[in-house]
Parts: sequence; C-alpha cells; structure tokens
Amino acid sequence: MTGFEIEKLLSVGADAVESVLSEYAAGDDEKFGVIYEAVRYSLLGGGKRLRPFIVLQFALLAAAESGADPERAYMAALPYASALEMIHTYSLIHDDLPCMDNDDLRRGKPTSHIKFGEANALLAGDALLTRSFGVAVSNAYASPETNCLAAALLSECAGMGGMIGGQVLDLIGESEHFDMETLERLQSLKTGELIRCAALLGCYAGGASEKMCEAAEKYAMGIGRAFQVIDDILDATGDEKLLGKPIGSDRESGKTTFLTFMTIDEARAYAAKLTEDAKTAVESFCGSEILCALADYLLTRKK
Amino acid sequence: MTGFEIEKLLSVGADAVESVLSEYAAGDDEKFGVIYEAVRYSLLGGGKRLRPFIVLQFALLAAAESGADPERAYMAALPYASALEMIHTYSLIHDDLPCMDNDDLRRGKPTSHIKFGEANALLAGDALLTRSFGVAVSNAYASPETNCLAAALLSECAGMGGMIGGQVLDLIGESEHFDMETLERLQSLKTGELIRCAALLGCYAGGASEKMCEAAEKYAMGIGRAFQVIDDILDATGDEKLLGKPIGSDRESGKTTFLTFMTIDEARAYAAKLTEDAKTAVESFCGSEILCALADYLLTRKK
Repeated sequence: MTGFEIEKLLSVGADAVESVLSEYAAGDDEKFGVIYEAVRYSLLGGGKRLRPFIVLQFALLAAAESGADPERAYMAALPYASALEMIHTYSLIHDDLPCMDNDDLRRGKPTSHIKFGEANALLAGDALLTRSFGVAVSNAYASPETNCLAAALLSECAGMGGMIGGQVLDLIGESEHFDMETLERLQSLKTGELIRCAALLGCYAGGASEKMCEAAEKYAMGIGRAFQVIDDILDATGDEKLLGKPIGSDRESGKTTFLTFMTIDEARAYAAKLTEDAKTAVESFCGSEILCALADYLLTRKK
Repeated sequence: MTGFEIEKLLSVGADAVESVLSEYAAGDDEKFGVIYEAVRYSLLGGGKRLRPFIVLQFALLAAAESGADPERAYMAALPYASALEMIHTYSLIHDDLPCMDNDDLRRGKPTSHIKFGEANALLAGDALLTRSFGVAVSNAYASPETNCLAAALLSECAGMGGMIGGQVLDLIGESEHFDMETLERLQSLKTGELIRCAALLGCYAGGASEKMCEAAEKYAMGIGRAFQVIDDILDATGDEKLLGKPIGSDRESGKTTFLTFMTIDEARAYAAKLTEDAKTAVESFCGSEILCALADYLLTRKK
C-alpha cells in the first residue's frame, strides 16, 4: 500500500469522523452561541484525524478476528473515535493557552484564545472534554458494559496518570533539562496514551481478544513514540507552510527533545526501528496491512 | 428538624464523601506529583458538600420508595456524589482563573492558581473533570446501564447546555446588563443544573420512579434558585469572615444580580417562596423531612 493510498484512506476516515463530530458539535443559543462556535472552530475542518482512524481500523481488525459484523463494529467505533478526537482537541486548545504554550497558530489558523478570547477558549476546551464522555457512554451500537469500559479507558488515558501527567512533565521541562528516560516518559504520557486509547477503543468496539488488545497496545506504543521523534525532526527541519506553524521553536525555547540526545540521522533510524516494532506487533492479524501502511506513512510524513 | 441537626447531618455526609474523594484523589509521582497535590488541595478539606448530600439523600428517598436496600442505594450513590463534587470543584478552579473571575481567595484559602500557578490550576481542573467520569462509570454498586445514564447526565448538566452555558452567560454579563429572565436562565444553568444533576443521580442510584425523578427535578430547581438569591444577598450583606471571601464584589463589578431587580427584603421573600415550592415537590414522599430541612437550612445560611 502506497503513501498516496493511505492518504486517501485517511481522508475518507477523516470525512466520516468529521460528519459525526459535526453532529455532536451542533447546537446554538441566541445569547451564548459563541461557545458552540468556538467548539466547532477547533473541532471541525482540520487535523489528520489520526486517532479516530486508528480506532476505526482496529475495530475492523477486531471484527475480522472475532467474526463480528464489520459494519456494526465500525458503527460502534465511530462514537468512541469522536469522543477521543474531542479529548485530543480540548487538549490542544488548553495547551495553546497563554499560561501553557502560548501559541497563536494551530494548523495555520489563529488558536482558539486568539480568535475567541481566553475565557471562551478555556470553556470550549472544558465543553469538549465534558461532551466527549457523554458521547462515549451514549454509544447505541455498543453495550452499556462496553461503553463503561470505553469511558473508563478515556478517563485513564486522558487523566493524571496519562495525558495530563505528560503535560505537567512538559511544564516542568520548560525550566529543567530531562534525561532521555524522562523525555520518553513525557512523550509516552502526553502523546502515547491517547494513541494507546485509540487502539484499545477500536478493540473494544470490535470485540477483540485479549491477544489482539496486547498487540494493539504494542502497536500504539511504537507509532506513538515514532510520531513524537518525527515531530521533533519536523520542528527542526520541516516546512513551515506544510506544518502551519513556525519551525525551530523547540531549539529557541531550549526544550529537551529527542534531538538533544541524537543527531537527525540517528533520530530517523530510531523512528524507523519503532515503526518496525509497531508493524511486527500486528502483522500476524489478517487485515493489518492498513495499520502497517499507516505506520510507514507516519514515519515519512512531512506535516 | 432544626438547623443544628441538619448541620450535623451535613457534616456526617461531608465526612463520608471526603473519605471517598480522598481515595479517588490519591496518587503521586516523583516527578510530577504537583498535579495530585493541586487536585487534593481544591478537592479535600472544604466546602459544604451540598451536592453530594443531595445525591445521598435522594438515593435513600428513592430506596424507601422502591423497596431497594438503603445501604446498597447509599453505596451506589457515593461514587456519583463524588463524581459530581469533582465536577463542581473543577468548575470552581477554572472559574477562579485570571481569564475568568480572577479570584485570589476561595473558602478563605488562596485559589489554586495563586498556590500552584495558572498552568497547574488549569490542569488540575482538567484532571478533576476527566477523573469524575471515570469514577461514575466504574461504580461497582450500580449496573453498567445506570452508570451510563449517570455519566450521560453529568455530561449534559455540566456541558454547554448546562453549567458551561451558564458560565458563558456570566462572561457576557460582565459587559452587558441582563433582564430578570436572562439572569434566572444564567443561574439555572450555572448553578441549578448541577443541583438538578445531584437530585437525579440520587434517584438513579436508588432506583426511583419516574414520578420521584420529576419531583426531584422540581425540588432541585427550587433550592437551586433560592441558593443563588441567598448568594446575592450574602454578597451584599454577609460576614466576610464566615464567607471566606470579600463582600460587595458584585456591586463593585456592576454585575446584574437578583438585587438589581428587588430589594433585600423582596429577595428574601422570593427565596422563601422558592424554598416552599421545593419542599412541596417532595413532601409527599416518605422520608423527605431531611430534604425539607435542608431547603430551610439553605434559606437561612450565613455562608
């Protein structure tokens, strides 16, 4: 499967998720409609929808393994994929706030607080996080048991022992140099946990075996780490126009990145190794070609 | 039942909830323990625990009606009560932030961002909101169906169509004068929805009838509105030491409050009327004396 083909698939997945997200973010109010507008501004019309794609692909892989109806598994995966994307989006909005990274641009557009003011951006993030759990537990294509498991997983991966823990480490890193081990930990919490969540949510939606769940976690850990290494490389060598944000910001801020510990070539080799590990974890499952192609695609991405 | 007796009961309920909350907020990390500390700082050791108390009381009332085991109903209500208190606490942390109300004091203590810095306060709020849903869906004393309903209700009441909507209205009110109708709407969203949530969560935990759920919503609406009217009166006439925050802030900021539309005596009479309505809604249920006494107690509170 070529990079072009996986890009096509990603864009089909992104469209499906976009349309579902758009329903969840619908709403208005004569008086306080700005909050709905702010939510839609950040949630819709952008992003690779990488996490939702992973949810959907693992749901199909799990259905192929368990013999479940793939269409039903896909339908069950969609609300989970949407809930996860809402959490990812809230984290970006809050991360961009002046008290955090203080970023003015995201995906080439003004960040939420630049566009709607800090208070509305804060509340838009809160609203997305709040709604995401409502979406997960109201999934009509999965059982209440599965919905509870999915929501508990979202809470765990996005919480203090997951993404938020990573964000706190990130804050500490602004005034402290990390060793490689702490950097790996930061990244596996801040980025890796939501990718692990994506893979497992797909498994839940498709009724995966214990064995597949374990493989999914290994895959997620591999591509999650590779993703971050590539992010660091792109921040140093990428194309500002493609990225939609200024490059060189990590070096300017003196942040510890993978490039603190290795050359760009070493970092590329490290990301390639992590990608191979990810592919190895899932390749024995029938239908894993797309996930393998996705891992390769992410390794060579330019944005 | 006297005010003293209800105060005793509230403090017993608060202790029970405190101990459960303390378990949920346990955790540490050598590197980023500050987030756990910040969560505990705001969550533990303070507050009337009014919302949890309402959850627990409605669970007992519902059990008395449905014939469910009251101890089991109580145990099922505790996680919901805790989840709701976490959401209430997160909303206070975010509400106090510089971009929102910019408050330095809460319950007589420095607010979270004064104590831990803005970024950690933001993340502590996010962490509480995230964990609250995990707590609700992992409630071992209720069925997955009920846990899903409870989490969906929390999401609804705390979201854009509930508390967050009220907060957005509140922001708009900083630069705009509201009429009485909009003020009532603001308050019913910002404060009322979490109190309604409390009453209904208790009903869910105790297996209440449709009829009791309706009564619970009426009760919650009555005491929620009365609560806010009393808040406005206390802000104008209260004792700073008892309240743990400066008084007169509403007048200074030119905010629209119930005292914009009525005298203090009229506001007291209005709160009394709302309290009577609340009591009337539940008094036909066997065991509603405590909820009625609570309504009276809130009407005469000094803090």
